[in-house]
Amino acid sequence: MTPFGKFPDRGLEDLGLEAVLAAVDDAGLHQREVQAVYAGHARTGRLLGRENGVGQLVMAAAGVRGIPVTGVGNFCASGSTAFREAVMAVMTGLYDVVLALGVEKLSVRPEKGKPLTSDGMELEGEFGFTPPAFFALVAQAYLEKTGASADDLAQVAVKNRAHAEHNPYAQYRKPLTAEEVLGSRMIADPLTLLSCCPTGDGAAAALVVSDRMARRLDRKTVRVEATSLLSGCGDPTATGGFEVDRKTAHAAYEQAGIDPGDIDVAEVHDAFTVTEVIHYEDLLLCPPGDGVKALLDGQTALGGRIPVSTSGGLMSKGHPLGATGIAQVHEIVTQLRGEAGARQVERATAGLTHCAGGFLDGDVAISAVHLFSV
Amino acid sequence: MTPFGKFPDRGLEDLGLEAVLAAVDDAGLHQREVQAVYAGHARTGRLLGRENGVGQLVMAAAGVRGIPVTGVGNFCASGSTAFREAVMAVMTGLYDVVLALGVEKLSVRPEKGKPLTSDGMELEGEFGFTPPAFFALVAQAYLEKTGASADDLAQVAVKNRAHAEHNPYAQYRKPLTAEEVLGSRMIADPLTLLSCCPTGDGAAAALVVSDRMARRLDRKTVRVEATSLLSGCGDPTATGGFEVDRKTAHAAYEQAGIDPGDIDVAEVHDAFTVTEVIHYEDLLLCPPGDGVKALLDGQTALGGRIPVSTSGGLMSKGHPLGATGIAQVHEIVTQLRGEAGARQVERATAGLTHCAGGFLDGDVAISAVHLFSV
Repeated sequence: MTPFGKFPDRGLEDLGLEAVLAAVDDAGLHQREVQAVYAGHARTGRLLGRENGVGQLVMAAAGVRGIPVTGVGNFCASGSTAFREAVMAVMTGLYDVVLALGVEKLSVRPEKGKPLTSDGMELEGEFGFTPPAFFALVAQAYLEKTGASADDLAQVAVKNRAHAEHNPYAQYRKPLTAEEVLGSRMIADPLTLLSCCPTGDGAAAALVVSDRMARRLDRKTVRVEATSLLSGCGDPTATGGFEVDRKTAHAAYEQAGIDPGDIDVAEVHDAFTVTEVIHYEDLLLCPPGDGVKALLDGQTALGGRIPVSTSGGLMSKGHPLGATGIAQVHEIVTQLRGEAGARQVERATAGLTHCAGGFLDGDVAISAVHLFSV
Repeated sequence: MTPFGKFPDRGLEDLGLEAVLAAVDDAGLHQREVQAVYAGHARTGRLLGRENGVGQLVMAAAGVRGIPVTGVGNFCASGSTAFREAVMAVMTGLYDVVLALGVEKLSVRPEKGKPLTSDGMELEGEFGFTPPAFFALVAQAYLEKTGASADDLAQVAVKNRAHAEHNPYAQYRKPLTAEEVLGSRMIADPLTLLSCCPTGDGAAAALVVSDRMARRLDRKTVRVEATSLLSGCGDPTATGGFEVDRKTAHAAYEQAGIDPGDIDVAEVHDAFTVTEVIHYEDLLLCPPGDGVKALLDGQTALGGRIPVSTSGGLMSKGHPLGATGIAQVHEIVTQLRGEAGARQVERATAGLTHCAGGFLDGDVAISAVHLFSV
């Protein structure tokens, strides 16, 4: 992957190329050995006039043509969706080496400093009901229900920034205190600026290879144990929480035959402080209702029972939509290979990524969970 | 599929829903039996603010949630790409019933009457180098090389419109004469208005099912023999023609073990009159250089050796980008089932669809070929 950040002088092909070359170099392969590509991006059409052909553009820059290149989009989970399609392409038996690419460039947005709105939510966004506003309501309901405080939630930002200090790819790496988080500009009560993930530019790539090819590579490989993706499951009679994330995670655990208790490290969709703790519960990383407890006990910090967002998460790494899901894969693979340096989770053998996105008809539009093991 | 045309009062979900319900009804299934969806669209982000979530929107309208829904985009071949992904999803063994959906609404374009430009070609388009201008150069080179005339090319439009007369889904069904084609407004010499496909609104859907499910259905099913998709293969030293289409077709024939001579009916990407005859050659439906001969001999008309564009093609049906590739599948399936009525190709047992799109670095960005049999 590329470092995430704001790179006014770099284009999609430039960022994507760096990620692609890093991925093939890491595997000891040449980019011409890639047999198919899935490229995830979520806002390149509306921002850069590239609704189609982002993958082709990047692969042409890498000198690769004449292979299947498919663009996929699924809101903030576009990268996760590209990764899933790469896994499925290998599962068909048609290919041994498939590249998942995620790339996004958000620093060109004309409405700088304003939160992104989701496709189909422009009217709501125009009147202020943006994702931070929605998740502020989620946070208020969560605090009301659990008795936790805004100060507790701020610990997510503090923890993730402490993790980011050791990640050279993270956009923000300076440690934060809870006072700084709570004292930053108020966006939507109780979410302050530092309770929300920044956007940014960046790219990430992952090679998915067949068992046969994995055996040939002179590199420690990580097994994809489950790929689970579900669109909104909204049930108007259901109450509270993110049902779609729960169902997606359940399906992943079932597919893999892995118990949630066996997960050693996870990257979850911490777009806002509150979402991370809710996701601990949805993804069965802690008992229902115990999200804040798991956080405050240090269970989800480095050195704890199940470190979450060891990369710094979206909160510190930034959230270049299409790249995010594959950057999560990058972190989990790095951890499971034991190559995470100062942020290494000891004896990590099973990991999880979770990315969600979009709104549709009163529900989350898409949720993706992947499970990995060594 | 829906009829193609201009439907100012209908939205993406409305058009998509009609296509989805028609597809599941035809199979004798209920939409809740669909296990995964791939939705192809190419311009919904820039025109309608829906770069993500078109598939989710349509499936929610159909009352279906909680399944994997993935958006795919690949220029004019977005629908073909969605179909290919559906085929591959069934190939993984994870699903028995996967829906490919293509939907597009182009009648909302602010620059009505002007040709669409391809992503990444906006600068060229601004100065007039639009797809019709490019294909006019292609046509001039082809006429120069083959000694054919503009009058000969016009016969593509005449033939396809004659086919369209019998297709209730086609946007234009009134028979045309060569005089009318040549006498219509000049767009880019030698391509007149009626030598170019119209755009439009529409949706198409196809159910891809496993062998196991096919046996359970009380409906004649058609076998997908090959799915081939390649991005531009441009070789600056190569001369003439569309190398990527040739390579994509070769790969499809090889995958299927089908000889080009065995194809009984084909839908090719006749975005312009000249492209259809060139595609006869690229797709090996006739010997190299014999495209015009095949056309003028009536080999590719209904009743001929290998009828092409029996649906009326893009030329008469219209070209709502994301829907086009799946509408081609609709026609071939209808033909191979023997349900095409007045436009039925007798004893058709093998069919081909071909869709291409986009430009990139001096080459076609994507080409898709599917082969089918009964």
